[in-house]
Amino acid sequence: MAEEKDIKGITVKKADDFSEWYSQVVQKAELADLRYNLKGFVCYMPWAVISIKKMYEKYEKLLEKNGHLPLIMPSLIPESNFHMESSHVEGFAPQVFWVTEAGNEKFEERLALRPTSETALYKMYSLWIRSYKDLPFKRYQSCQVWRYEGKATRPFFRAREFHWIEAHNVFATEEEARKQVLQDMEMTYQMLEQEFSIPIIFFERPQWDKFAGAVSTYAADALTESGKVIQLPSTHLLGTNFSKPFNVKFIDKDASEKYGFITCYGPAISRIYGAMVAILGDDKGIVLPFDLAPVQIVIVPILFKGSKEKVLEKCEEAEAMLKGMYSVQLDARDDMSAGEKFSKWELKGVPFRIEIGPKDVETNVAVVVNRFTKEKKAVDMKQLGRYIDEAARNYTRHLKEKKLFDFNSLIQKCETLEEAKKAIENKKIVCCGFCSLGMDAVKCAEVIETDLGAFVRGRKVTEEKNHFSSCIVCGKKAKDTVYIARSY
Amino acid sequence: MAEEKDIKGITVKKADDFSEWYSQVVQKAELADLRYNLKGFVCYMPWAVISIKKMYEKYEKLLEKNGHLPLIMPSLIPESNFHMESSHVEGFAPQVFWVTEAGNEKFEERLALRPTSETALYKMYSLWIRSYKDLPFKRYQSCQVWRYEGKATRPFFRAREFHWIEAHNVFATEEEARKQVLQDMEMTYQMLEQEFSIPIIFFERPQWDKFAGAVSTYAADALTESGKVIQLPSTHLLGTNFSKPFNVKFIDKDASEKYGFITCYGPAISRIYGAMVAILGDDKGIVLPFDLAPVQIVIVPILFKGSKEKVLEKCEEAEAMLKGMYSVQLDARDDMSAGEKFSKWELKGVPFRIEIGPKDVETNVAVVVNRFTKEKKAVDMKQLGRYIDEAARNYTRHLKEKKLFDFNSLIQKCETLEEAKKAIENKKIVCCGFCSLGMDAVKCAEVIETDLGAFVRGRKVTEEKNHFSSCIVCGKKAKDTVYIARSY
Repeated sequence: MAEEKDIKGITVKKADDFSEWYSQVVQKAELADLRYNLKGFVCYMPWAVISIKKMYEKYEKLLEKNGHLPLIMPSLIPESNFHMESSHVEGFAPQVFWVTEAGNEKFEERLALRPTSETALYKMYSLWIRSYKDLPFKRYQSCQVWRYEGKATRPFFRAREFHWIEAHNVFATEEEARKQVLQDMEMTYQMLEQEFSIPIIFFERPQWDKFAGAVSTYAADALTESGKVIQLPSTHLLGTNFSKPFNVKFIDKDASEKYGFITCYGPAISRIYGAMVAILGDDKGIVLPFDLAPVQIVIVPILFKGSKEKVLEKCEEAEAMLKGMYSVQLDARDDMSAGEKFSKWELKGVPFRIEIGPKDVETNVAVVVNRFTKEKKAVDMKQLGRYIDEAARNYTRHLKEKKLFDFNSLIQKCETLEEAKKAIENKKIVCCGFCSLGMDAVKCAEVIETDLGAFVRGRKVTEEKNHFSSCIVCGKKAKDTVYIARSY
Repeated sequence: MAEEKDIKGITVKKADDFSEWYSQVVQKAELADLRYNLKGFVCYMPWAVISIKKMYEKYEKLLEKNGHLPLIMPSLIPESNFHMESSHVEGFAPQVFWVTEAGNEKFEERLALRPTSETALYKMYSLWIRSYKDLPFKRYQSCQVWRYEGKATRPFFRAREFHWIEAHNVFATEEEARKQVLQDMEMTYQMLEQEFSIPIIFFERPQWDKFAGAVSTYAADALTESGKVIQLPSTHLLGTNFSKPFNVKFIDKDASEKYGFITCYGPAISRIYGAMVAILGDDKGIVLPFDLAPVQIVIVPILFKGSKEKVLEKCEEAEAMLKGMYSVQLDARDDMSAGEKFSKWELKGVPFRIEIGPKDVETNVAVVVNRFTKEKKAVDMKQLGRYIDEAARNYTRHLKEKKLFDFNSLIQKCETLEEAKKAIENKKIVCCGFCSLGMDAVKCAEVIETDLGAFVRGRKVTEEKNHFSSCIVCGKKAKDTVYIARSY
C-alpha cells in the first residue's frame, strides 16, 4: 500500500507516551485513516477490517449458540419512538444525529440515526411477542450506531460512528432476565479474555452511570498496565422500564397478561479492537491473537546476488507447505530490504516470520521468529509444518498467560482520600467504602472526579459483601465497596 | 415465533397474482415485517437474515479471492464532496437523505447518508494512491445505503435502506479497467447463477439509463418466467470521470503523473435475496439453494398415543446422525399437527423433511421428502446419512437445471411496434433495432415506455453485431440491437 515506504517504526515507547504510541501505531500499521473530512469519522483500513470481521464472526457464532437469532433493523428511528421512554430520550438526546430532509422534501418528524436500537426494536417486539411460548425471545443485530460525542474522539476507542452487536432479549420473569445478564458476562469473558486476550473485570455501575432507562448496568472494564481502565461491553437489566411504555406484553400460562422483562447487551466490536491494539501492542507495533491476524505467517527471503533463485524456490516450498492451513504471505518484493520487511510485519503484528537465506538453503533450514515472545528458532524444513502447527496452537495461549494478569495485583485498599490520591498517582485501582451506588452518593462521586481525576467504576460483580465501615469521601456509613480508577 | 399459528399457507397462485403471492410469502414465511413505523423501511427477520449473511459470506470470499480487500467507510458524506462531480450529484440529489443537526447543534454543511460511496472513497483514494506500484487498487465494503425512492417500495426488491457490497477499483489503464468490468460480470454469473440459481443476462445500458457519472453501465437483468425482468448487480466503467475531480492520480513507471481509471461494482445482497425468493418460490412458499437454507433438514415425528416415545427416540437418532454435517431441526412441539408442520416448513423452504411414524420405527425407515422436486422416498435408517449426503449434493444442481433457462426461449425478434406490443403482452422479451444507445435515442425510448409499458434494457454484452437495419420506433438507421422488457 501507498504508505509503506514511509513506515519507519514507532518512535516513542508505549510506556512513556501511550497516546502518541497509539496514534503512531494506528497510522503506521495502517489500521485507520483519520484524514476523512468529517470530524469524529474515520476510515477503517483493510488490516483492521479483516480482524474486525473475524471478531464479529466469533461473537455472532457464540450468540447464536446461546439461542440468539440475527435480524436487521432500519437505522432510522422516528423521533416519536424516542419519546416513549423518558429517561432514555433524556440520556441520548444530546448525542443524536437527526435526518430532517430528503431530496427536496423537509420531514414533518425528525428521524434519528440510531444511537442504539431499543426504541426501534421494542415497538416491533410488542407485535412479535404474544404468549409465554414466544419466550425467551432473543435477537441480535450486527450494525453501526452513531453518537454525537462531545469528548475527543480516538480511532476505534471513541468515534461518532462505531460498529457493534446489540442483543435484545425478553423473558417471562425477572429471574430469567438476571440469568441472561450473567450469561452476557460469561460470553464477554469467553470472547474478550479467551479469544482476544484482553483482561477484564465486571462492575455493577453506580446509578448515576447506568444506561439511560436501565434498572442496572453491568460493564466490563479492561485493565491496562498503566492502571487506567477502558470501558468495554456492558449488559443492562431493563426490567419492565421499556416493556411498559412500548407495550411488550405476553399472555402467561395462567391466561393473564404480563409485561416482559428485558435485557440488552452491546459489545462494540470496533472499540474492542482498539482495546486489543492498546493492550497487546508493544514498542515494535501491534500484537494480535493468532486467529485474528490477517496474515499469520510471513516468509521473507534473504536475497543476495547469485543465490536469489535458490532462496526464492525454498521460500515457495515453505509457502506451499503452509498455505493450506494458514494465511501465509511470501514477501518477495525487491524494493525493500529484508530488515525493512522485518520491521514492517512486526509493526503489523504478524505472529510468525520465516526467514530463509542462502546458508539456510544449504542446510535445509528455515528460521522462525515469534512476534510476541521474540523467540527465534532454526527449524529443519522437514519439520517446519509440525513446528508451526505447535507454535500456532501455543501463540494465543502465551499471549493470554502474559496479558491476563491478576486483577488483585492492581488493587490498593484505601481508607482516606489522601491514600486514594496517592494510589491513583501510583497507577493503582482504589478499593474503598462508599455511601452507596445510589443517587444519594452523586456528590461524593463528584469529589472523586475533581480531587482524584478518577471515576467510581462501581461494585465488583463477584464481590460478596461490603468490606468497609465508612465512605471514603463523606465518612458516613458505607453501604458499598467500590473501585475507583482513571479511565480512557 | 409469534406468527406461526396464523400461517395458513399461501392463498393465491404465483402465476395468477405475483404481487399478492410475493407479499404473502414475505409475511407468512416470516422474511420481513412491514409494520415498522417509517415508510419504505422494513425489519428483516431472522429467517431471511440467516440466508443473507451466508450470501454475504460467499460474495466476500469471492471478491477477496479476486484481490479485493475489505474496508469500512463512514456512512455520512459532507455535501461538498457530492458537488465535486456534477452529473453524479445531479443524478443522486433527489434521492439523498440529509443529516442537518445533532444534539442541539445545527450543522453549517449538510451531511448525506451515503446513497453510494464514490464521493467519500475517491477523496481518500487520492491520498492512498501515489504510484503505479499501488495499482491495481481494489477495495470493497459491505454496508447499507439509503435512497429516498419515490417509486413504491417492496421488501427486499426496493427499499429506502438496502444492504449491498460496493467494490471500487483503480487501474493504470482503461484496458485493465475494462477487464475488471468483465471480471465483475463473471463474478455475478458465478454467484447469482451457480450459487443462488437466479438466471441472469448482462446488458450494456443505454446512456440515458447509466449510473450517474459513469462512462458505461453494465447491469444484470434477472429473468422471470413472466417475462418481466429485475435489475440486479451492475458494474460501471467510470473511466477518469471521477479521478479528475477527485484527483486520483499516480506516478507511472515513466515518472509522469496520470489519472487512474476507475470501476465500481454494486451487488445489492438484500435485493438479490428478494429476486431469489421471487424466482425460485412456488405455490407452497419459498425455495432456497441448499447452502443458504437456515434449516436444511427438518425432522417431523408422526405422533400417536402409545408410540410417542419410540418415535421421538428414532427422530433423535436421525438428528444425531445428521447434525454434525447439516443444520437440522427436530420439530417435536405438540401444539401443531404433523400436517401443519409440513406446510410450515414447506412455506419456509427447508430443503428436506424427514418424517418418522410408528410404522417407520418398526421397519427402521425414515421418509425423506424433497421440498423442490417433491420426491418422497422411504430410506433405511442405516442408509439415511449416505442418502442425505447425495440428495444434498444434488439439490441445488436440480434447482439450477430447472430454473436457469435459456434466455433465447423468451426472446421474440420484432420489426414493428405493433409486433413488439403483442410480444410484450405475451410475456416475451423483444429484440429489435434501435437508433442507438446514445442520448439521441431518448425520444424513441420514451415511445417504448408509453406505448409498450416496457423499457429498453440495452445491448446484450455478448451480442457481436447489430442484426437490424432500422429503428423499431422512428425507422431511421439502427445502430444497435437492443432488448426491451417489462420490469419489476
